[in-house]
Amino acid sequence: MNAQIQNALNPDVAKVLEAVQGRSLDRIFFVACGGSSALMYPSKYVLDREAKTIASDVYNANEFIHRNPATLGEGSLVILCSHSGGTKETVAAARFAREKGALTVSLTAKPESPLAEASEFVIKYEKASYFDETVAKNSDFYLMYQLVTGVLNHKEGNALFSDMVESLENLGTVYEKTKAQFLDRSKSFGETYKDASIIYTMASGSNYCAAYMFAVCILMEMQWIHSHPIHAGEYFHGPFEVLTPEVPFIMLLGLDETRPLEERALEFSRQYSDNLIVIDAKEFDMEGIADSVKGYIAPLVLNKVLGVYATAIATARNHPLETRRYMGKVPY
Amino acid sequence: MNAQIQNALNPDVAKVLEAVQGRSLDRIFFVACGGSSALMYPSKYVLDREAKTIASDVYNANEFIHRNPATLGEGSLVILCSHSGGTKETVAAARFAREKGALTVSLTAKPESPLAEASEFVIKYEKASYFDETVAKNSDFYLMYQLVTGVLNHKEGNALFSDMVESLENLGTVYEKTKAQFLDRSKSFGETYKDASIIYTMASGSNYCAAYMFAVCILMEMQWIHSHPIHAGEYFHGPFEVLTPEVPFIMLLGLDETRPLEERALEFSRQYSDNLIVIDAKEFDMEGIADSVKGYIAPLVLNKVLGVYATAIATARNHPLETRRYMGKVPY
Repeated sequence: MNAQIQNALNPDVAKVLEAVQGRSLDRIFFVACGGSSALMYPSKYVLDREAKTIASDVYNANEFIHRNPATLGEGSLVILCSHSGGTKETVAAARFAREKGALTVSLTAKPESPLAEASEFVIKYEKASYFDETVAKNSDFYLMYQLVTGVLNHKEGNALFSDMVESLENLGTVYEKTKAQFLDRSKSFGETYKDASIIYTMASGSNYCAAYMFAVCILMEMQWIHSHPIHAGEYFHGPFEVLTPEVPFIMLLGLDETRPLEERALEFSRQYSDNLIVIDAKEFDMEGIADSVKGYIAPLVLNKVLGVYATAIATARNHPLETRRYMGKVPY
Repeated sequence: MNAQIQNALNPDVAKVLEAVQGRSLDRIFFVACGGSSALMYPSKYVLDREAKTIASDVYNANEFIHRNPATLGEGSLVILCSHSGGTKETVAAARFAREKGALTVSLTAKPESPLAEASEFVIKYEKASYFDETVAKNSDFYLMYQLVTGVLNHKEGNALFSDMVESLENLGTVYEKTKAQFLDRSKSFGETYKDASIIYTMASGSNYCAAYMFAVCILMEMQWIHSHPIHAGEYFHGPFEVLTPEVPFIMLLGLDETRPLEERALEFSRQYSDNLIVIDAKEFDMEGIADSVKGYIAPLVLNKVLGVYATAIATARNHPLETRRYMGKVPY
């Protein structure tokens, strides 16, 4: 590891990498709920493409406990995440995995939380990615990628690590530029679709993360608008039959290897719809991001742009993003 | 293998099991599109719970090719499925996997199809499960479960195989009884929701298969009704905010280990909604199904019941299940 990498590497992540080096590891489980779970999809994508010996799975925390995977054990690394550190299913999942002998690592903004307490290692992140200005350093996504490419490097000698760590240092600038670039378009989106009863989202590969987060955490949770994150490859095997000129679809195009799936879905939809909202990562100025990791980093930037769209539609609808019917308000 | 099992075992499956026995195998990929993909979710669930050495993943066929998993190779078994055997992404995936040295096995109703030709082994199924009366023997689900528990048995000595094979012989009777049991309720569902613009579905664990198939293949594809299959554990981390008394949710309750997630979602929703459609596998007469596999078999029966609901809503809406806007009608 050169000095620049060593310097950029978060000390909490460094500790985990040290611990991982001394263990045999054949399995990574990504375990969380909602947005904290979707945050992990790109890491699963990276592992699928890069890991030669390590299998990985993403599970909702409560599903993980009850599914009780037979391979969970001492050869497992379980990566958990909860912003508040208080998500009860995720806390329970950390305890469950630890009892099984797995190495547990939790990402949270609250290092004094129950989740932190339940986990062997804690990685404190500074900011969740969605709304917190343009902060990128030590944000949730930033640390997840340091961690996952670091594990790949330490266990399999994968060379992506240094490109990733260096590129992440420039993520804040990319965020700033793309947010400014899409500001006008986001306002027009908000005005145009403020009365929509349903808005679909679509993507594939690592970008499915951004489709899920916007559909589920923004539209359904924060705006009470019906939605469904559609996988661009599955689109042609059912979902596309609901496409009419009126139904809005947010079409995300990333830069990873699955981009042809997203392009195919867009090309088809353009023939039959007047209400496509296209956000194409090819328009992003990715200066400072190495070519080897551009595909992996695009979903983070798509997410950041969608944060601007979220604010815009909330403003246009006069429905603040903080409004909830049930979450944190009633027992469940 | 006792004589009864040997007798019930489909000869195409038996050939695959023989081939698998002579190979080292650390990875199973389930690769298909749409309903043929959802068909595989319960098998992934079985493997997760039972397999001590074999990791597994489910991918949309086109995603699989472009994602290009690094672990795909000679130690992999790739199980594909397409009813017509002509789904072009799935055919391409079979070729792709075979080139990588994986063992390819395709389930299809058409053993003379391009998919069959592209795959090393073909398992011909007699019927797709949804609408074909009560036929269970040699149906898609039936053969998938023979195959997957057979592989577990041959590679890891897992004892579930004989219970599964024996129980599957009684699946047709279970189908018959549950279809009759839910006929009146399905008609009332059709009448009540024929004008609904959106209907959500929900389940967890192995039953998520049934939630996906009904939402995506029936409601969206065959009825042009907006939908979204929600994972019952994820429900509380976003989606539940769209719940109001008016919005219909089909709540599926299975018999597997994740049932507490489905029960929690139902219990919560009952307090705030007047439009829940509950299908609970506890009501099914599962005579002839061994206790050890009841949880795994429940999603098949849920699917069969939902087939009755599909027919009922199609009839009530006067919108035949065969009607399509795009599928098979325009280029894509």
